[in-house]
Amino acid sequence: MKRRELVKSVGIGALAAGTAVSAPMVQAKKSFQWKMVTSWPKNFPGLGTGANFLAKTIAELSDGRIQIKVYGAGELVPAFEVFDAVSRGTAQMGHGAAYYWKGKIEAAQFFAAVPFGLTAQEMNSWLYHGGGLELWQEAYEPFDLIPTAAGNSGVQMAGWFNKAIDSVSDLKGLKMRIPGLGGEVLRRAGGTPVSLPGGEIFTALKTGAIDATEWVGPYNDLAFGFYKAAKYYYYPGWHEPGTTIECFINKTAFNSLPTELQSIVKIACRVANQDMLADMTARNNAALQTLVDKHKVEVRALPDPVLSKLKQLSEQVVAEIAEKDNFSKRVYSSYNRFRRQTIDWHRISEQAFLNARGVV
Amino acid sequence: MKRRELVKSVGIGALAAGTAVSAPMVQAKKSFQWKMVTSWPKNFPGLGTGANFLAKTIAELSDGRIQIKVYGAGELVPAFEVFDAVSRGTAQMGHGAAYYWKGKIEAAQFFAAVPFGLTAQEMNSWLYHGGGLELWQEAYEPFDLIPTAAGNSGVQMAGWFNKAIDSVSDLKGLKMRIPGLGGEVLRRAGGTPVSLPGGEIFTALKTGAIDATEWVGPYNDLAFGFYKAAKYYYYPGWHEPGTTIECFINKTAFNSLPTELQSIVKIACRVANQDMLADMTARNNAALQTLVDKHKVEVRALPDPVLSKLKQLSEQVVAEIAEKDNFSKRVYSSYNRFRRQTIDWHRISEQAFLNARGVV
Repeated sequence: MKRRELVKSVGIGALAAGTAVSAPMVQAKKSFQWKMVTSWPKNFPGLGTGANFLAKTIAELSDGRIQIKVYGAGELVPAFEVFDAVSRGTAQMGHGAAYYWKGKIEAAQFFAAVPFGLTAQEMNSWLYHGGGLELWQEAYEPFDLIPTAAGNSGVQMAGWFNKAIDSVSDLKGLKMRIPGLGGEVLRRAGGTPVSLPGGEIFTALKTGAIDATEWVGPYNDLAFGFYKAAKYYYYPGWHEPGTTIECFINKTAFNSLPTELQSIVKIACRVANQDMLADMTARNNAALQTLVDKHKVEVRALPDPVLSKLKQLSEQVVAEIAEKDNFSKRVYSSYNRFRRQTIDWHRISEQAFLNARGVV
Repeated sequence: MKRRELVKSVGIGALAAGTAVSAPMVQAKKSFQWKMVTSWPKNFPGLGTGANFLAKTIAELSDGRIQIKVYGAGELVPAFEVFDAVSRGTAQMGHGAAYYWKGKIEAAQFFAAVPFGLTAQEMNSWLYHGGGLELWQEAYEPFDLIPTAAGNSGVQMAGWFNKAIDSVSDLKGLKMRIPGLGGEVLRRAGGTPVSLPGGEIFTALKTGAIDATEWVGPYNDLAFGFYKAAKYYYYPGWHEPGTTIECFINKTAFNSLPTELQSIVKIACRVANQDMLADMTARNNAALQTLVDKHKVEVRALPDPVLSKLKQLSEQVVAEIAEKDNFSKRVYSSYNRFRRQTIDWHRISEQAFLNARGVV
C-alpha cells in the first residue's frame, strides 16, 4: 500500500458545524518569498499602505505560503523603473499606475485614467465584466507581466494652483505636473505638462519650477503638504475620474505558483482594489476639512467653460490614440463603447441620485 | 527528534521565480462541506449568480477545502427564513439583505439600504473603514451569526408603476411592494407598502393586487418580466441608493475553520461584493435598452417636488429609528455622521465629475 493510499484511509470526523473530512499525512506545500517594488514612497497613505494591505492579504489567505516584502520607490529601484524591474524578474510584483508606461505601450493609459472617462465603479465594471482586463493582460504580455487592478483613488481633485483659473486663457503657459492623457490635453490648451514622481513634486511646486500640480485627493495631498506651496485647490478631477492603481506580476513567478495560490494573488488584488477606494473615500473628507479649516486652503470649482473646453480637447486626444496602432484601436473601441453605455445608465442612476440627494 | 523537527530539516530549493521553500510531509488539512441558503430564486441574474460566484470563489481560494452547495429560495427554506435557518445551524451560510430582518433587529436596515443614504461606494467605505461592519457584527451577535457585505446593486430604479406620478398626491392610496425604510416613507406619503419576496411580485402586479413595485434595476427587472405588468419605469431609486447584499455565517461553523480559511471566507465575500456591482453596472444599460427599444417601456424621472417630499419624510423616518433602542441610536449616529461627511466630499468629487462629464 502506498503512503498516499494509507493516509486516505484515516477516519472521517464530523463537526457540529458541517461535515469535516479530516487530516491524513501528505506532502506539505511549497512556500514563496517575493519582492514587491512600488512607485510610491514607503507606507505613503492610501497608495503605499495599499501595497502593504495587498502583501498582508496574500500572506493571510495563503496561510503564510506567500510572503511578500514591499519596497518603497527608490529602495530597490526608482519609482518609474518598477515595470522594467518586474519584467526582467528583479522583483516578482510591482505596484504602480499604467499611465506611467505610456512610453512603452500607448494604450496603457486606458487602464489607469482617461480624462472625462470612467469612474472607479465604471472602471471595475469594464475591467471585470466588460473585457477590459483581458485587453490589459494582452497589453503587458510582451513584457512577461500579468497586470491587474489593485486600487482606485475615486474621482481626484483637479489639483493645486498658484494661479486662479477663471477662463480657458489662464491655462496658457501653465507649467503643471500632470501625467498621461490629462497632460496632453493641457498641452493642447496651451500649457506645459511635466511628469514627476510623487516624491519630487513638493519641491518643484515650492520653488516655482512648476505653477501647478495634480496628485490625488485631499487625504494623499495633505500628506505631501501641498498646501504649503500653493494657494488654490481646484475640483473636479476631470483628468482622473477614478484612477486604477495596478499590480503586475512577473509571469514566470506567477506560473510557478500552484493554482490555488494563483487564485489567492488575483483575488487579493481585487480586494486591495476595493479597499483603497473605501479607505480614500472615508478619509478624504476629514482631510479636506483640515485643509480648509486649519490650513486655510481655498477650494474652487473649475468654471464650466473651462471644463467644456477640456472635455472637447480630451475627446480629440483620446480618439487619436486609436490611430496609433491596431491594438490601441481595439482598446479605445472597447473602452469607448463601454463609456457611452455606462453614461446612459448612470445618468438615470448614480448621477440622478446624487443630484436628488442634494435637492432641498 | 520529533517528526516536525525532522521535516523542517528537509532541504531548501530555490526557483528562478523567487525563493521557494519546499515540501516536507505534514498533516493534511481538514475540508468542509457547507450549505448556503439564499433569499433569491436559484441562479437569479445578479443576486443568485452572485451567491454562486461567492461559493465558487471560496472553493478556488481554499483549493477545494471548503465546498458550498447553494440553495435557491424555497429549496431548503423559504426566502425570508434564511436568517433563522443559519442562526440555528440548518445551513452554515445565508445570502440575503439585512432589511428583511427589521422585525428582529430594527437597525438592520442601515446595513442594506437607507432612503437618500449612502451609494455603493459610500456603503463600502462606511463598512470597511467607517466602523459600519463592526456595528453590523454586533447586531447579529445575539443570533450567533457573523454578517458581512457580499454584493451591491448600485443605485436602483424607483420602480414600476401602473399610474403616473406627477405630484406628491399621486402617492396617496398607492399600493406598492417596497420593503424596509422606503416602505415606511411611502406609508407617510399616504401609500400602502407591501413586503413580498421577489418570486411573488410579478403575479401581484399583473393581477392588480399591487399598483407598483420596486425591485432592483433593469438587468434584474427584465429577468422578472415586469414590463409585461406595468407601464412606467421611474428613476432614481431614492429608497435604495446602493443596496448591500449580505452573507451571514453561522458562528459555530465559522469558528470551526482554521484561521486561513476564515480569512478566505471573509475575503471572498468582499470580492463577491465588488463583483456583483461590477456585473450589474455592466449589464444594466443593455437591459435598459432592451426594455425601451423592444418592450416600449416608458422611462420617467420622479419630479423634483416628489423627491423633495420623499427626502423630507425619509429624514424623519430614519431619525426615528435612533429613538427605538440604544443600539439603533449608535448605528444611526455612526451612519449619519459618515453620510454628512461623504456628501460634502462627493459633492466636489463624484457628483461634480458626473455633472462635468455631462457639460456640453
